[in-house]
Amino acid sequence: MYEEFSFIEQKLEPLTFGNPAARELKDDCSFFTNINNLVISVDNSIEGIHVPLGTDVKVQARRAVLRALSDIATFGANPLCIFSSICIPHDYKTNFFDKIAIGFKEALIEYDMFLAGGDITLYEGPLSFSITVLGSDGIKNMGRNGAKKGDLVVLSGNIGSSFIGLKLLKNEISKKQVNDYTFLINKFLVPFPRISLGKNISHFSTSIIDISDGLISDLNHICLRSKLGAKINLDNIPILEDAKKLIDAKIITLKDLITAGDDYELLYTIDPKDSINIDEGSVIIGEMHEDNDYKVVNISNEIIISDKDLKGYKHF
Amino acid sequence: MYEEFSFIEQKLEPLTFGNPAARELKDDCSFFTNINNLVISVDNSIEGIHVPLGTDVKVQARRAVLRALSDIATFGANPLCIFSSICIPHDYKTNFFDKIAIGFKEALIEYDMFLAGGDITLYEGPLSFSITVLGSDGIKNMGRNGAKKGDLVVLSGNIGSSFIGLKLLKNEISKKQVNDYTFLINKFLVPFPRISLGKNISHFSTSIIDISDGLISDLNHICLRSKLGAKINLDNIPILEDAKKLIDAKIITLKDLITAGDDYELLYTIDPKDSINIDEGSVIIGEMHEDNDYKVVNISNEIIISDKDLKGYKHF
Repeated sequence: MYEEFSFIEQKLEPLTFGNPAARELKDDCSFFTNINNLVISVDNSIEGIHVPLGTDVKVQARRAVLRALSDIATFGANPLCIFSSICIPHDYKTNFFDKIAIGFKEALIEYDMFLAGGDITLYEGPLSFSITVLGSDGIKNMGRNGAKKGDLVVLSGNIGSSFIGLKLLKNEISKKQVNDYTFLINKFLVPFPRISLGKNISHFSTSIIDISDGLISDLNHICLRSKLGAKINLDNIPILEDAKKLIDAKIITLKDLITAGDDYELLYTIDPKDSINIDEGSVIIGEMHEDNDYKVVNISNEIIISDKDLKGYKHF
Repeated sequence: MYEEFSFIEQKLEPLTFGNPAARELKDDCSFFTNINNLVISVDNSIEGIHVPLGTDVKVQARRAVLRALSDIATFGANPLCIFSSICIPHDYKTNFFDKIAIGFKEALIEYDMFLAGGDITLYEGPLSFSITVLGSDGIKNMGRNGAKKGDLVVLSGNIGSSFIGLKLLKNEISKKQVNDYTFLINKFLVPFPRISLGKNISHFSTSIIDISDGLISDLNHICLRSKLGAKINLDNIPILEDAKKLIDAKIITLKDLITAGDDYELLYTIDPKDSINIDEGSVIIGEMHEDNDYKVVNISNEIIISDKDLKGYKHF
């Protein structure tokens, strides 16, 4: 079976015909330096794949836009507008249309964007959004390929909360087992694209990615693009009290949290001299090194995850 | 049941927040005069909806791009690049990926474009493409709203061939009943976006639309946007010899041809003084008038279609 990444790399990347805007299809966005530094990304959000079946349609619509926006953050761009391709199942409920419009509206107002166009089709399939998002004034030299040997690896916030939120929504973890149920499910249902942070760090970060596939998998993208390895100190990775409790109770593992996706925090690298510039919410979790290997170690320097199990979290 | 148009008009149009780039969601494209006259359109192409089930995957991929491109022609823009959202059924055949890439490649090379990005998801649904196409250097004052009283209505080529092609593909018309089987099915399977023509006529046309929903329905869009009526002379509408044969044999009707979609010819209006500028393939089929009514008449001036039956051809 083909995997998403090999299809993209072997079959689709040649179709960029080397145009630099496409960035070899290896970044979160395309970046048009010849068109006002326009940044564009496309993200699918499908019921039953990206959100559990039965998720409120308004929430699905809003989340679809917010997820797409997260990519824009990685180029320090200003959200401009969206195009929405919507495929609606034939047996839709009458309130679907209102809910889609309300969900879009919330996200658009929150990020000062407008709806610029799209397409709608009724079909025999799940409710599906494909959101094309445009951002203006992206910052050059961002993306995943600029990390240097010795750069520090920085994370913009705690991770794994979205994973726990999803488990709660699917009743795989009980509401009683956590303190902050609403916060956790909202981490999954209402992504917080790091637009402002993206702009702030764009002046000194050497590479950047948003964590959609999981910390481990997404850091691996930076390693591969930057042709470097990385060493991450597990104990530096910020996780919530609720996550610690669930790990202690052996309901989840720390590895779950660092391989799970949908956090939409930014993972970025900086020259050590810029460590004074990182914001309060960001945490240094490791560093880039010249060897191609990549490992996550615990406080005793024992390897917890190595190159061999860099699978991460795949939607595909 | 909500219809596509009322959902767009009542629920989605307000989300443009009056931004002129969105053109009230009433044109084929968005048009960013503040970003290098960039033109953007999004088009869904779904197996079983836009093409018959079982259509070769390469053909589906190529057609998805060509259809989206046709919108770009209406702003006289130069094709620049595409973004492809692809949803692939779980039970895909192993050669799907190769075929998608080949289909894209053919369309991209033909129109000197590149693939700039996208997203891919495996799901429980039909093979589905949503293509976002970018065109550069669009022409201002195009779109559907500029027709004036007394303007002539012009059609860029014959219509209904795609309708017959689709009937042939679905075996609703037998191969033996037509002379030019390959031409007809290709009119459906391989749309010919009128890019060059769009650029040529952009200097004098007063309004423009591509015929995707059917001549009657699409002319009605121009009427509504331009707040005018139109009178079309049925006998001036160019149709093929094969179409005439099928009408004579009572297998199809002329009304089928003028209400069927997927022709991707351009329908445009011009000041009568510019009639010397239209190209050889284009034909004057009627004129715009001040009354809001809209009718198609035959050679004896009998009304064949009036406002009341302007339904056209809907994918949705």
